[in-house]
Amino acid sequence: MTLPTTNIQMLLVSRPTGEPGPDNFRLVETPLPALKDGQVLVRHHWLSLDPYMRGRMSEEKSYAQPQPLGAVMIGGTAGVVATSRHPGYAEGDAVVGMGGWQAYSVVDAATPGLLRKVDATRVPLSAYLGAVGMPGVTAWMGLTQILTPKEGQTIAVSAASGAVGSMVGQLAKARGCRVVGVAGGPEKCGWVTATLGFDACVDHKRHGDLASMTAALREAAPRGIDGYFDNVGGLVLDGVMAAMNDHGRIAVCGMIAGYNGAPMAMANPMLILRSRLLIQGFIVSERMDLWPAALKELADGVAEGRLKYRETIAEGLAAAPEAFVGLLKGRNFGKQLVKLA
Amino acid sequence: MTLPTTNIQMLLVSRPTGEPGPDNFRLVETPLPALKDGQVLVRHHWLSLDPYMRGRMSEEKSYAQPQPLGAVMIGGTAGVVATSRHPGYAEGDAVVGMGGWQAYSVVDAATPGLLRKVDATRVPLSAYLGAVGMPGVTAWMGLTQILTPKEGQTIAVSAASGAVGSMVGQLAKARGCRVVGVAGGPEKCGWVTATLGFDACVDHKRHGDLASMTAALREAAPRGIDGYFDNVGGLVLDGVMAAMNDHGRIAVCGMIAGYNGAPMAMANPMLILRSRLLIQGFIVSERMDLWPAALKELADGVAEGRLKYRETIAEGLAAAPEAFVGLLKGRNFGKQLVKLA
Repeated sequence: MTLPTTNIQMLLVSRPTGEPGPDNFRLVETPLPALKDGQVLVRHHWLSLDPYMRGRMSEEKSYAQPQPLGAVMIGGTAGVVATSRHPGYAEGDAVVGMGGWQAYSVVDAATPGLLRKVDATRVPLSAYLGAVGMPGVTAWMGLTQILTPKEGQTIAVSAASGAVGSMVGQLAKARGCRVVGVAGGPEKCGWVTATLGFDACVDHKRHGDLASMTAALREAAPRGIDGYFDNVGGLVLDGVMAAMNDHGRIAVCGMIAGYNGAPMAMANPMLILRSRLLIQGFIVSERMDLWPAALKELADGVAEGRLKYRETIAEGLAAAPEAFVGLLKGRNFGKQLVKLA
Repeated sequence: MTLPTTNIQMLLVSRPTGEPGPDNFRLVETPLPALKDGQVLVRHHWLSLDPYMRGRMSEEKSYAQPQPLGAVMIGGTAGVVATSRHPGYAEGDAVVGMGGWQAYSVVDAATPGLLRKVDATRVPLSAYLGAVGMPGVTAWMGLTQILTPKEGQTIAVSAASGAVGSMVGQLAKARGCRVVGVAGGPEKCGWVTATLGFDACVDHKRHGDLASMTAALREAAPRGIDGYFDNVGGLVLDGVMAAMNDHGRIAVCGMIAGYNGAPMAMANPMLILRSRLLIQGFIVSERMDLWPAALKELADGVAEGRLKYRETIAEGLAAAPEAFVGLLKGRNFGKQLVKLA
């Protein structure tokens, strides 16, 4: 094939206050450098958009360094090796990495963890950014390591139709739990119950205050909630806490409801004491030792059709900023991707 | 001795809204029933006042049944057997139990857990209601089971001069930790550092907003806070969360700041995610298996003078309601007791 000589890249050029906008980004065309020994040129087919990126755009304390200004936005990518000067990779290999918001990346393939070869014949390449990638492993980790569900218990999960939430619920169902989702709107809720097999789904758009949210959750979980996988924080978290059984467990994976604004309070932390709750925040990259076991269950489940997922696809890198804002607002349905090739 | 024929008792006659007042209680004189086989008559020397009692006075969901109206207020007591019709107890035995707010109790001594003989020569009888009793075990349990401190870590504790907090800090010091107390006023803070040996103490009365509280905690814990034993909730909890290291752990034992009023919010639960915190509520009566190990360390420490404590003593049962209100407001200094004999 003819090798490309230019790349297109999306840079973060200013830090958003509140919701990100077009002014925070700039699309640029840049020359692709010649490969050095040990390097691989990857053509990105898919860019993953994930809520954690909003945290990186800010300067405040987070679990990772802020995204530098003027640099390519970080992000997970799935693609195909265009050319290789590393003996472990050959043209045409399907690979996953953190290639960033750009059409191509030049990767030092010898550095452990930067690039991972995947089998794009067993499951689709894009799934390695969702169900069989970081979001799926996140679901698996929070469920198995923090919620530690027992057969017959009730597990709740917010953003239930999303890349993480959809896996949490299906993995909990496979462990014999009753599963209650929380999602926005009848279409998402219907898919969560009909296609994913959740036992119930609460439409948060119909429950705008704590009393209503709590009542809906109690109806959906008549034996109370034993474990909650939190992707959103805010009102849903408050409602779940009120509907939890004694010794309930909460895995805090995201609080997307507050990513664009002022800190959201937790309404009644006294419930932590009254119900002897355990609440734990986690990030998936701190337990790399668990990834192989997680990925095996996820890949097997997807390949065998037991684990289902859905994708929302934006076309082309220029569409990424708007798609990302949509993700923070819940406009996506399932895993949000950008198709780059 | 001449056996008594009448008892005096403090009944809860109505449920407080907000701060309890004299109208919620009634002092009555009642006849003492004759002992049946297997029963023991205990003369209470000491009544323990503890923050958990406020929860029992309410009807709302808590981890225990509400205190019934018209009945003797529940409470821990230390006393001496006045007469016994159970072979395991003899007149003069020092005993601890849940005798309630009254001068005497008639106990079915065969029922396991109601009465425990103690050695009042090794440590003072009153200590079995504080340092070597439920508060001490509470401190030991939250520290060793939830905070799991490592040598060199920084442990913070609120209500640091209280029955629980004073033990938390001293037990953490014995494990090689830097210990930061939070207490109300210079007198309590001075005692916590000079007598108990805490490394620092933040006077919460001097820090009325989150920024000030956080700055004071950061100064007192220059390497950050790794574990926090929470007795108060509210502003102190918010400040500690902002000053916590990654993977910090919080044992929620009490939230006394909110016991008399509306639920207190947690200002910034996003920190649970950002700092990957673990927060866990617990009550000491759910892990009776741990009491023997805890009581051994506490009794040894008190008997050998390594664990110090302080008491505030109200005289006579009639003084109990006011002393209890004072406890909720932090007017006590150390363990709050009522002297009954």
